[in-house]
Amino acid sequence: MSVNPIRVTVWNENLHERTQAVVQAVYPDGIHEALATPLRAAGFTVRTATQDQPEHGLTEDVLAETDVLLWWGHRLHHQVDDAVVDRVQARVWAGMGLIPLHSSHFSKIFNRLMGTTCNLKHRVAGERERIWTIARGHPIAEGLPEYFDLKPEEMYGEPFDIPAPDELVFVSWFQGGEVFRSGCCYTRGLGRIFYFRPGHETYPTYHDANVQRVIANAVHWAAPRDVAPLRFGRSAPLETLD
Amino acid sequence: MSVNPIRVTVWNENLHERTQAVVQAVYPDGIHEALATPLRAAGFTVRTATQDQPEHGLTEDVLAETDVLLWWGHRLHHQVDDAVVDRVQARVWAGMGLIPLHSSHFSKIFNRLMGTTCNLKHRVAGERERIWTIARGHPIAEGLPEYFDLKPEEMYGEPFDIPAPDELVFVSWFQGGEVFRSGCCYTRGLGRIFYFRPGHETYPTYHDANVQRVIANAVHWAAPRDVAPLRFGRSAPLETLD
Amino acid sequence: MSVNPIRVTVWNENLHERTQAVVQAVYPDGIHEALATPLRAAGFTVRTATQDQPEHGLTEDVLAETDVLLWWGHRLHHQVDDAVVDRVQARVWAGMGLIPLHSSHFSKIFNRLMGTTCNLKHRVAGERERIWTIARGHPIAEGLPEYFDLKPEEMYGEPFDIPAPDELVFVSWFQGGEVFRSGCCYTRGLGRIFYFRPGHETYPTYHDANVQRVIANAVHWAAPRDVAPLRFGRSAPLETLD
Amino acid sequence: MSVNPIRVTVWNENLHERTQAVVQAVYPDGIHEALATPLRAAGFTVRTATQDQPEHGLTEDVLAETDVLLWWGHRLHHQVDDAVVDRVQARVWAGMGLIPLHSSHFSKIFNRLMGTTCNLKHRVAGERERIWTIARGHPIAEGLPEYFDLKPEEMYGEPFDIPAPDELVFVSWFQGGEVFRSGCCYTRGLGRIFYFRPGHETYPTYHDANVQRVIANAVHWAAPRDVAPLRFGRSAPLETLD
Repeated sequence: MSVNPIRVTVWNENLHERTQAVVQAVYPDGIHEALATPLRAAGFTVRTATQDQPEHGLTEDVLAETDVLLWWGHRLHHQVDDAVVDRVQARVWAGMGLIPLHSSHFSKIFNRLMGTTCNLKHRVAGERERIWTIARGHPIAEGLPEYFDLKPEEMYGEPFDIPAPDELVFVSWFQGGEVFRSGCCYTRGLGRIFYFRPGHETYPTYHDANVQRVIANAVHWAAPRDVAPLRFGRSAPLETLD
Repeated sequence: MSVNPIRVTVWNENLHERTQAVVQAVYPDGIHEALATPLRAAGFTVRTATQDQPEHGLTEDVLAETDVLLWWGHRLHHQVDDAVVDRVQARVWAGMGLIPLHSSHFSKIFNRLMGTTCNLKHRVAGERERIWTIARGHPIAEGLPEYFDLKPEEMYGEPFDIPAPDELVFVSWFQGGEVFRSGCCYTRGLGRIFYFRPGHETYPTYHDANVQRVIANAVHWAAPRDVAPLRFGRSAPLETLD
Repeated sequence: MSVNPIRVTVWNENLHERTQAVVQAVYPDGIHEALATPLRAAGFTVRTATQDQPEHGLTEDVLAETDVLLWWGHRLHHQVDDAVVDRVQARVWAGMGLIPLHSSHFSKIFNRLMGTTCNLKHRVAGERERIWTIARGHPIAEGLPEYFDLKPEEMYGEPFDIPAPDELVFVSWFQGGEVFRSGCCYTRGLGRIFYFRPGHETYPTYHDANVQRVIANAVHWAAPRDVAPLRFGRSAPLETLD
Repeated sequence: MSVNPIRVTVWNENLHERTQAVVQAVYPDGIHEALATPLRAAGFTVRTATQDQPEHGLTEDVLAETDVLLWWGHRLHHQVDDAVVDRVQARVWAGMGLIPLHSSHFSKIFNRLMGTTCNLKHRVAGERERIWTIARGHPIAEGLPEYFDLKPEEMYGEPFDIPAPDELVFVSWFQGGEVFRSGCCYTRGLGRIFYFRPGHETYPTYHDANVQRVIANAVHWAAPRDVAPLRFGRSAPLETLD
């Protein structure tokens, strides 16, 4: 219900785009720009940040001006500074939305917020993924068809070691015989989290209109509400019930 | 994310207001008008309907133009025509939001959608109710304090025989020793349902600013999304996977 | 934690077995006996009941001695007497477990307890179903592999118009491109409900050891606890808080 | 469904009992023995471990022989060795049950598994706590009354910064006007977690028969199932669907 544009920061590991020709061909400006462009077109205020920047581009100032943070990481999760992860986690608890994408299932921030290993099965074989909308009435499913296909995509399969999602929006079918909970909603503190599966770096997933629609919907859904900080600690004395 | 104003229909049994002076004094224009007025002020397009009208005021035309339906009933649940309940249920399944209030826990439409008795404990003793916000990050809690009090209110106490809510937004504390799940979210078909407890007819509950804020938030939350109807039945032949 | 054997009643429409040679070949003693035999072997006390019996075999006495009721129906849902459905529903609310199987997604009792249409997609093409265990730590998944296959099976596909399950234990993959929430847990009143998808009448599904294990586990999970009836209605006066 | 007795380890910080006369008077053998004694009487195989022991008493060997771990900590959470917390977390993921009690809401292990601050309101004023059973059909509620009182108890109040529980079994009412989600179920990996609120060290909470019944029920519920370890990582090649 906010009037001002939602402020999005797209964070990217930004490794494969600089080191692999195949990835550069698909995402010449980086995955972060591929994600940012359609969000800008949808009217959001969008900036990007990458792991190679000082403080990974996620300074206190940047986070203070971020309503929703997209996260794409893969090979360098272990090199993300714990102090930055602390900072992001504190912001999620205070209400910032977080959208971990694809291989970010193994990001420090997602693992910490879930409390599980977030491990899964995987296979890179250029196969078909068919994403079924399970919760059609959910805001993140708005305007989506009952299913849409991505081909080629990397397979992620169950078991996916996550807490049972508060809301399960999408389930993927894979050509090779697997299923996967591909769109999962959580709340941690005041912050809303939406994990979305698609996005292998060598495939043009983030150019897909349906994928872009899901991510835009998720930004709306995850944007913080007008909420005062939670108050904890010593409470009023017993006799003060008015 | 709809641009046009959300269209709300406030439905009321409209019995006590016409037969009990104490209720007339609190709600001179009926509970439906007390509910409609702040919703109009909040920018919604609001009409009212009452049980004594033909088809209870809920014709096909009225329902076709209703995004969210508020429901207040108490003594005459059994006199609500099953054909009208069928019609409302079909509309909820197709995406219309439904907000049953207070004694509507025993309405035919709520009971059908829940599949349980929806029975509970109760006491009219003018006591204090303290409503705690449990899910502060939820859209229905936006702008609400950590708790607010209503005094006097009727007590509703656990056990409340409902399915475990998809999201539990509010829990009430009562002076006499009871607790109650006072704000409960459900989805049935494409429709979103929010049961909200407060509202005894002899008390000025619906004039309370916090109560009005909750209901306005719930209307936003329950408004239907842009979703094509669900497709069921015989599916494509096996060989047609493209 | 009960010491005495759990008392199971297996209920069957019992139509196809008497009218279709292909079904008779697969289930010569009826689907009810195919379900009852492995449950007896597992140590449960099992009786059967069929739709063609007086009161559909579900008299007050039979239900009073039933801890968990299995339900298999398909073509004659509409001929099940509403008075018997009332009786079963009351027993579920009081704690009896209910396990609707396969085409019983359209049974009156399941529809009433869910509050939705329970509609879905379907296709009879003898295709492969691969059932993935999503909730490996759940009692109903005990001893099951990470997945098991049934071939041939009927396809059931999303959208499956049910309330989001309290616990989602199994998700099916189908050869033709569909997924389905195949093992869904609910509680209604004191009763526990487990919907389990497999079981087309022309296929030998209920002779499968994994299917039998799931059903036996579900009986354990759904068996009623030692619980006093819920007390509703007028509560103690305000001043009686001791 | 295990035949052998469930093996319980009761872990205690064991500080207050040795340093405060008032606590020693209530729990002369330590909170761990107060918890262990009724569990032994209920037929479980029980050992204890305390923070002051080498490796806090939680060696690999001890954990390997533990089906369910009870945890009571308060002042010395920060002194619990991270390596031991790693070990416990790995065991929970592999299926060990965990029952954090009272002030263990701030234990490292619970915070890690939740991904939130687990902060709350509190007040030590010897007031009445009335614990309402919300989920009467749940195994942890078996044999419990609709509510039971503890007086005196410490108040814990909302907001309680936890993920929405998978199952909410108990909600507490406090004399001073607060409510609290007192019995919360989670699954992380294959392990089941039940947080239970009561238990301030200066009050005789763990001598209460209802509290003891809840904890014994929770041990049954949290005990690991017969489950093979989850398999992750590289999956079968695409062409191997048999």
